[in-house]
Amino acid sequence: MTGRLTVVGLGPGSLSQLTPEASAALLAADALFGYTRYLERVPERAGQRRHSSDNREEHQRAEQALSCAAEGDDVVVVSGGDPGVFAMAAVVCEALERGPPQWLTLDVSIVPGVSAMLAVAARAGAPLGHDFCVVSLSDNLKPWPVIERRLHAAAAAGFVLALYNPVSRARPWQLERAFETLRSCLPPTTPVIFGRAIGRADERVAVIALSAASAAHADMATCVIVGSAQTRTVERPGKSCLVYTPRSSPS
Amino acid sequence: MTGRLTVVGLGPGSLSQLTPEASAALLAADALFGYTRYLERVPERAGQRRHSSDNREEHQRAEQALSCAAEGDDVVVVSGGDPGVFAMAAVVCEALERGPPQWLTLDVSIVPGVSAMLAVAARAGAPLGHDFCVVSLSDNLKPWPVIERRLHAAAAAGFVLALYNPVSRARPWQLERAFETLRSCLPPTTPVIFGRAIGRADERVAVIALSAASAAHADMATCVIVGSAQTRTVERPGKSCLVYTPRSSPS
Repeated sequence: MTGRLTVVGLGPGSLSQLTPEASAALLAADALFGYTRYLERVPERAGQRRHSSDNREEHQRAEQALSCAAEGDDVVVVSGGDPGVFAMAAVVCEALERGPPQWLTLDVSIVPGVSAMLAVAARAGAPLGHDFCVVSLSDNLKPWPVIERRLHAAAAAGFVLALYNPVSRARPWQLERAFETLRSCLPPTTPVIFGRAIGRADERVAVIALSAASAAHADMATCVIVGSAQTRTVERPGKSCLVYTPRSSPS
Repeated sequence: MTGRLTVVGLGPGSLSQLTPEASAALLAADALFGYTRYLERVPERAGQRRHSSDNREEHQRAEQALSCAAEGDDVVVVSGGDPGVFAMAAVVCEALERGPPQWLTLDVSIVPGVSAMLAVAARAGAPLGHDFCVVSLSDNLKPWPVIERRLHAAAAAGFVLALYNPVSRARPWQLERAFETLRSCLPPTTPVIFGRAIGRADERVAVIALSAASAAHADMATCVIVGSAQTRTVERPGKSCLVYTPRSSPS
């Protein structure tokens, strides 16, 4: 088969954070597949087909993109942030494994991008400067008790936490429950960073103590970083504070 | 103070994975500070000063860069991958907190980059497609028992693991011990990905079962990703296998 499928990470939002490799793949594609909001970020090119879909139609999107590549096209599936972190790369791999055997001969590649957690961390300082865990709070595809167990295990072992998919209209209570779990094993002063839409016009970053953190600070586009007991906040006159986790760790 | 310090992530190595934001910051700087090997990747510009140092002189480098910015210069500290992941952003924050109070008024910003784990994951498929933990195996700044406890807690809770700083001349046994710890709580068939120098001439990626994984597959520039019990390997005729972790999780 001659078709090609590339899963491309758009980064957090601004074109200045899109890698040249990602730009080149987007430009070369015959057809783009993606969630409507992500496709809107990609500059239009004459002759290029665009297939936008809802963010809950990920599996169908992957299958359609693979079918299109199997017909010989150069196909790109776009993802926000990095496609490998709770995004389209795993969905495409899963569809490939379940699909017709000839899909296995397609050229499939993944173009990484700056993930949301890295962009949010950079705005705040260096909260991910030491060991950390990355957890999706969506219980659509895994049971909530698994999530709660992981949050507890990670925080108790001294990991900083980056939380993806903190809230949505269909999942209003999960982030609040996550904070409750984390309050049971972390100091009340632990800094929590809420960051959304980094590099875009509606960017917002807030740093709040765990004792006062609430789901009201987050929306679907927010990545939440919860420090460890070692994470420090440096106040600066006339500037936003810097939050960082030192590289050294006590025993 | 009018000086400015920016910590810039160079990404995994190829200029095609350097963001336009990072390129612009590098170009604008009066002075660059960094580990010799990273500075070598940055195209030369007339009139720009370069201060290269050994990779063990991170704290001294941060202090020198902050002093230089305090004199009014536009200073860039370069980091491989993303500066926020076991790299220079936390070192700069720490030096800033410990340094003279006037440093707190400097303009400090972090430009994120594609971290090594994202680049390695992209080459292999989507091993980080579900919850994962990121751990540095360096026991220079934290006791080894803390590392072992974290590895066990993370693997037992179902996290995939990305391991940074797996080996060095001064730390030859740590990765082997980490594999031993992980063998006690993961299936022998769990895929382990060794990836180094992604996008550079000496790139190398290998996928090996945990039962056969050995520190001989890694060097200082390697990022090691260890799957969870859910991570899958898809064999493809005439192509390298795809390794991915499904988004769904059993209870």
